Amino acid sequence: MHSSNLIGSVIAVVSSVFIGLSFIIKKKGLQLARVNGPSASVGGYGYLLQPLWWLGMITMFVGEAANFVAYVYAPAVLVTPLGALSIIVSAVLAHFLLKEKLQKMGVLGCLLCIVGSIIIVLHAPEEMSLTSVQQIWKLAIQPAFLSYTASAIAVVLILVFYCTPRYGQTNILVYIGICSVVGSLTVMSTKAIGIAIKLSFEGANQAFYFQTWIFAVFGIICIVVQLNYLNMALDNFNTAVVSPIYYALFTAFTILASAIMFKDYYGQSISSIVSALCGFITVLSGTIVLHSTREPDPPSNADLYTPLSPGVSWYIQGREETKFLITSECEMKA
Amino acid sequence: MHSSNLIGSVIAVVSSVFIGLSFIIKKKGLQLARVNGPSASVGGYGYLLQPLWWLGMITMFVGEAANFVAYVYAPAVLVTPLGALSIIVSAVLAHFLLKEKLQKMGVLGCLLCIVGSIIIVLHAPEEMSLTSVQQIWKLAIQPAFLSYTASAIAVVLILVFYCTPRYGQTNILVYIGICSVVGSLTVMSTKAIGIAIKLSFEGANQAFYFQTWIFAVFGIICIVVQLNYLNMALDNFNTAVVSPIYYALFTAFTILASAIMFKDYYGQSISSIVSALCGFITVLSGTIVLHSTREPDPPSNADLYTPLSPGVSWYIQGREETKFLITSECEMKA
Repeated sequence: MHSSNLIGSVIAVVSSVFIGLSFIIKKKGLQLARVNGPSASVGGYGYLLQPLWWLGMITMFVGEAANFVAYVYAPAVLVTPLGALSIIVSAVLAHFLLKEKLQKMGVLGCLLCIVGSIIIVLHAPEEMSLTSVQQIWKLAIQPAFLSYTASAIAVVLILVFYCTPRYGQTNILVYIGICSVVGSLTVMSTKAIGIAIKLSFEGANQAFYFQTWIFAVFGIICIVVQLNYLNMALDNFNTAVVSPIYYALFTAFTILASAIMFKDYYGQSISSIVSALCGFITVLSGTIVLHSTREPDPPSNADLYTPLSPGVSWYIQGREETKFLITSECEMKA
Repeated sequence: MHSSNLIGSVIAVVSSVFIGLSFIIKKKGLQLARVNGPSASVGGYGYLLQPLWWLGMITMFVGEAANFVAYVYAPAVLVTPLGALSIIVSAVLAHFLLKEKLQKMGVLGCLLCIVGSIIIVLHAPEEMSLTSVQQIWKLAIQPAFLSYTASAIAVVLILVFYCTPRYGQTNILVYIGICSVVGSLTVMSTKAIGIAIKLSFEGANQAFYFQTWIFAVFGIICIVVQLNYLNMALDNFNTAVVSPIYYALFTAFTILASAIMFKDYYGQSISSIVSALCGFITVLSGTIVLHSTREPDPPSNADLYTPLSPGVSWYIQGREETKFLITSECEMKA
């Protein structure tokens, strides 16, 4: 295992712990806000007066920042699959702090996620060291990756303009497909921006290069599209079904994009590649086992367990609070 | 992956396919014997007139022989865990041929067993090449392995004479513990005998060495003890619970014994060892998921899915037929 990968893995795991923890703290904060009648009734923003809710926000911010930093140090093929660990942290903490009972099969699901993650970490390829944004730009405009980007955009356009109006409400793969394909481009842009910031801090200011700004604008567009369709997927389908499929497709497309752009698997042994693939399947199976045995929650709470790409949890959290407050108000009126 | 390991793995997989297949063929034969009234009523031995039953016996014999040969070519730490594949073959064939519906989680369990097995195979250590039984004898009487054997026998004696009368009927670990600890010694003896036969075939007759006969006698005693207590475990506890625990303990003790005797992991990287361990946990989880979702069968059929050590399935099959016929007769009388 390479030292840069080790740093990236540790940061990614820490990030997952913070993100998983933040879900629990914020949920606890929302529960307190609901119990505390007067504050909940003040225009529905009672949770803003809850210190716990703010602590949750800070925890999540730290987690997302750590996730961003992890992408700078380790290849996306390593960091993205480790995102599943936040599901475990949430499930385990919910068991102890929120008394949401984790069943035996849930424990098995967690174990599988951990075991699979270990295999992925052990067999992740080493990333080439990058010294400027221009170098990343060169990788991004190589014919193979341009073809990937063009194909990805074409697929997304077909899904958005042809499939969404026809099958969007009935076929779960339409919305999740859009999120996952766009998500792979989000991660690549995020990584470029992260490396640019790191290099700038080290003294080689990258803000002067127009390429940095192209990555930034492209990244923001991707995040907005991804968030929008993830939202639509969660609104239309059960989270227990959305989560594993989204995790699988998002991770798969990210690995594909990263493999093409950074040639991650060049020079890797077949044994390593197959092992990493087996680890990925193990984590995926773990998320399915974990979700299949969870007690059915109200949709707003279930959303909390979606494995998320960088930045995406912000949005979900926002939705969650709105839903929660709507539910609370309905309950109070009823 | 080393060529000798590759041969051993392929033979072990073929062995699992045959053993898994034999369960299905024999069950089909027993079903036909039951449908065919006259033959089933002739003293309860109607199945002996069923060609399918005999085909099943031959298939099982081929499978057990292949398992024996696999131990000659590859280390026990590789061959033993692969035994879980026969569970998959049985489950999948039962789905298609016996119409015993395999549920979604069952498919996931199968997938986990396969993925875990691949990881184990990829990270199995290479075995030292052995040229005579005397060399194996030297390995067996090295202080570390003698200590293991002495401890194993002591633990078994405590379990048999102290724990069995007190907790045997209530604590599942007593019988399974005996089977698993003795099983690890069975495998070591089996391996020694297998290598002796292979060397004899190659021209270096090993029957002249008294060590060969010690291994043979010790191996037979171990098999008898193991069969006896496996039988008692299956009689007292649910197969769905016995199977995964037995698989886990039996494989764990076999790996431990093999690691001590053959120094399997000497010179292996930490990464390989951890990967193999993760693969083992994945297979174990797969067997739990697979068993947890199977429709409850009558006990006699459930027994068919136990992952077995060399030779053990013979005995179980015998029990199964007896039970089956008793059940049939009861049903006919009722």
